[in-house]
Parts: sequence; C-alpha cells; structure tokens
Amino acid sequence: MITARALPGLPEIRPGDNLGVELAALARDAGVANDDVLVVSHKVVSKAEGRIVALSGVTPSVEAKVLAHRHGKDPRHVQVILDETAELVRAERGVLICRTHHGFVCANAGVDASNAEEPDTVITLPRDPDASARGLRTALRRAAGAYPAVVIADSFGRAWRHGQVDVAIGIAGLEPLADWRGRADRQGRALQATWIAVADQAAAAADLARAGKDSGEPAVLVGGLGAHVTRRHGPGARALLRARDEDLFA
Amino acid sequence: MITARALPGLPEIRPGDNLGVELAALARDAGVANDDVLVVSHKVVSKAEGRIVALSGVTPSVEAKVLAHRHGKDPRHVQVILDETAELVRAERGVLICRTHHGFVCANAGVDASNAEEPDTVITLPRDPDASARGLRTALRRAAGAYPAVVIADSFGRAWRHGQVDVAIGIAGLEPLADWRGRADRQGRALQATWIAVADQAAAAADLARAGKDSGEPAVLVGGLGAHVTRRHGPGARALLRARDEDLFA
Repeated sequence: MITARALPGLPEIRPGDNLGVELAALARDAGVANDDVLVVSHKVVSKAEGRIVALSGVTPSVEAKVLAHRHGKDPRHVQVILDETAELVRAERGVLICRTHHGFVCANAGVDASNAEEPDTVITLPRDPDASARGLRTALRRAAGAYPAVVIADSFGRAWRHGQVDVAIGIAGLEPLADWRGRADRQGRALQATWIAVADQAAAAADLARAGKDSGEPAVLVGGLGAHVTRRHGPGARALLRARDEDLFA
Repeated sequence: MITARALPGLPEIRPGDNLGVELAALARDAGVANDDVLVVSHKVVSKAEGRIVALSGVTPSVEAKVLAHRHGKDPRHVQVILDETAELVRAERGVLICRTHHGFVCANAGVDASNAEEPDTVITLPRDPDASARGLRTALRRAAGAYPAVVIADSFGRAWRHGQVDVAIGIAGLEPLADWRGRADRQGRALQATWIAVADQAAAAADLARAGKDSGEPAVLVGGLGAHVTRRHGPGARALLRARDEDLFA
C-alpha cells in the first residue's frame, strides 16, 4: 500500500534558513522511516537557498523587452526567465516554454511569481536540485535519525493534456525509473516499453496529499516505496531527462 | 492522507466477462466507500469489451507495410495501430506516436501486444473509455453497494522525460482537473497557472501500488480524494485533452 501524508507546521522559510533541520523535525514527529520518501515542493528549497530575485535589480535585455511586450509580461520577469533558459522552446499566449539549464522543459523556466513573501520578487528553481536533495537527505539523517529518500518536486504542464502534474526535479535515494523492460509478462512474452517513472509518480501522489497549493504544506511523506529506496543517493532526476535528439514525443 | 491499495484476486478477464461484477466483489471485500476512487488498468476493460484483434484476420495496407518495414514491426500490428489513429504524430525507431480517435497522444495508439492471453493478438484501447468508466461505476453501485469514482488508466510516455506514468483515459465521478487558478496564495496574490490534473495524479499514485506490471493487479483503490469525487459522472477524461491548436508544449 502506498500512503502520502502532508506534514503540516513548516514555518515560513527565508534565505539562509536551515531547511534540512526544519524538515527533520516534522519528519521525526511523523515517525519517518528509512524506506519513506520525503517529497518537498521546490519553492521552499529555492527560498532556503536564496533563489529569490528582486525585479528592481534586473535590467532587461532587448530580447526580454520584445518578448515581454509580445506576451504581456514584465520585461524584468522575462529577463529572469531568459537567465534560467538554455533554449526557448516556444512562446505563445503569455507563456514561455523553456528548456532550463538543468534540462527541464517547463513553462517560464520554472520562474514563479506566486507565493513569494516579498512583492516584486520572483523565485527560480534551485541551481542543482539533485544536489539540494542530497543535502536535505544528509541533514535528515543527522537530525531525524532516519534516512528516507528525498524528492524535490515542481508542478509542470504537459504536452497534449490539460492541467499540471508534479514531477521530480531533484532526487536522492530513490530510483528515478523502475525498469521492467527485460521482464516477461504472465504469458512469458517480453513486456513492451515498461519503464516506470517511479519518482515522478511519487511526486504526483504527494501533490494529491496537499490540501491545496495555498495550504502551506510543502512537505509530504510517501510510504510504501521501500523497494525503490536505495542507500546510495543514486543518479538523481537528471536520469529522467531525455536527450533532445532521442525525444520521440516532442 | 492519500492511500492506494492494490486489490488482488481479479480473475483472468475474457471477452464478455462482467468486469463490473468482478470488480465489485473485490471492492466490497476491501471495504470500498463512496469517496474512494477505483483505478482500473485499461487492459482488463479492453479485454472484457472484446477489444482484442487477431492478427491472422488483418490485411495490412500499403502504408502499414511501408511503416512496418521501416520500423521493424509486424505489418498487421501496424495496421491495427493505424486503424486506431486519427493522426500519426511521429514515427521513429520502432515507435509510432499517434493521436488516437479519442484524442490521446501515445505510443502505438495504445495498441499493446503484451499480456494478451492469446498469442498473435493485440489489445486496443476501449472504444469510449469514459463510457466504460461510467458503466463500471453503475455496476459497482448495483453490486458493491457503494458509489466510488472510477478511473481507467494507461501508461503513457511523455515528451522530454524518460519513463512512463499512468494517466486517466476514462473517468466517471472524479473531477479530472482541480482549478486553483482563481484562488489567492497566502500573500493574497493570484496563483499562476495552478490547474491540477487530479485524475492523472490519481492514476499515477495507483500505479505505484501495483507490485509490478506482471502482478495481475489491475485494480487499485485510492482513498483520500473525497473532495474531488462527485455524485455526477462529470465530464470524463475528455476534459483533459488539449485542443491541437491550443497546445503550447508540443
């Protein structure tokens, strides 16, 4: 059985706060075990890491000004998006679909204006979300006395389907993918293309456990995935990224 | 808290079997409640509905022969895929990415050779998965005495990311999407683009609860989503499909 429980009570996180210690306190109170997965919304990770940009200090480029004009956005906000972007995949109707420097393809390069404590600031993705996940996991072991896996999640739009689902952008200690491709099905024939994005599904399950995006519950403990939790940190969310020239779907 | 429990013991399903009655027996034994969501893998639904095609009876067209030759596939299998396809989105390295007649974009139009009881047969998606979900829900009410929501799920590949996640292809009684776009965050500013694909995330959570694709556990009971379960069947998975000309991501 899979369980996903939101852990209430995380205080507002500010740059420089020790998020690992704060999460460890919640996780300990919740009785965290070594085979659990702690899923954390990226925004608190970004805040703790100081990934907050004051728009007053941003000077937009000509490209940012043109895009902003065309899509009804603040040119300084667009400049922050472009700074996070390796490739602008598409720009339409106020949304910029970007491939970030990490390799994630998402709206506005993951730069978000909502939920920032300060007005006129935006929040970017962590610089290296896999490293952030590893750091949180190590802090949890020290402070909570358990060694759960850690997943950092963000809500992404999808091609062809409405709505957003949470996906893993940083992972430590959870297999990103479970490979069933070599196994036979019950009739003994090879299963076709069964390669399950376990970490993304864990992020999605965790998102369901949040009462709402404004509930202030960025941490969710997912149980029942012990078969995929590893002592080593493993390859991280990087392993989920398709190389551009391999992508059949886009 | 969200829970997802696989319901073991579903017998092998054959065309004409009353899947609703079989599922009702499992759900009743599991103590199904009105605010639960029963997630069912499409394959058993397709089998019960006789959506099994014997390749011996298929005559491939010239197009099917050309595609099959180019991608190392059985021309008859390709013909079944083309029969299910409204638009061939891409064809590369043995995989055909198709928009099905329902509007789903997925590999091989959802036509699957694995797990079929009979050799040299393939299984197609249900003709109208939302109608299938409604039918199962009605059968559950009669036979299990509870009125859970029903989601029919399939594993889809994604653009830009490796691995597959389960998504909802048929829905009865669950909101496909939870719309937080009008709500304010804790700082009182409007949330950006927060439109959560609840049913897809429920399908993903359910997939995690299966021990494996060969475990013979196509039915998973998801609890904790009562806020999204509705008495009416609702708009179905059709509401999750982006119109082609609206799609920013693809």
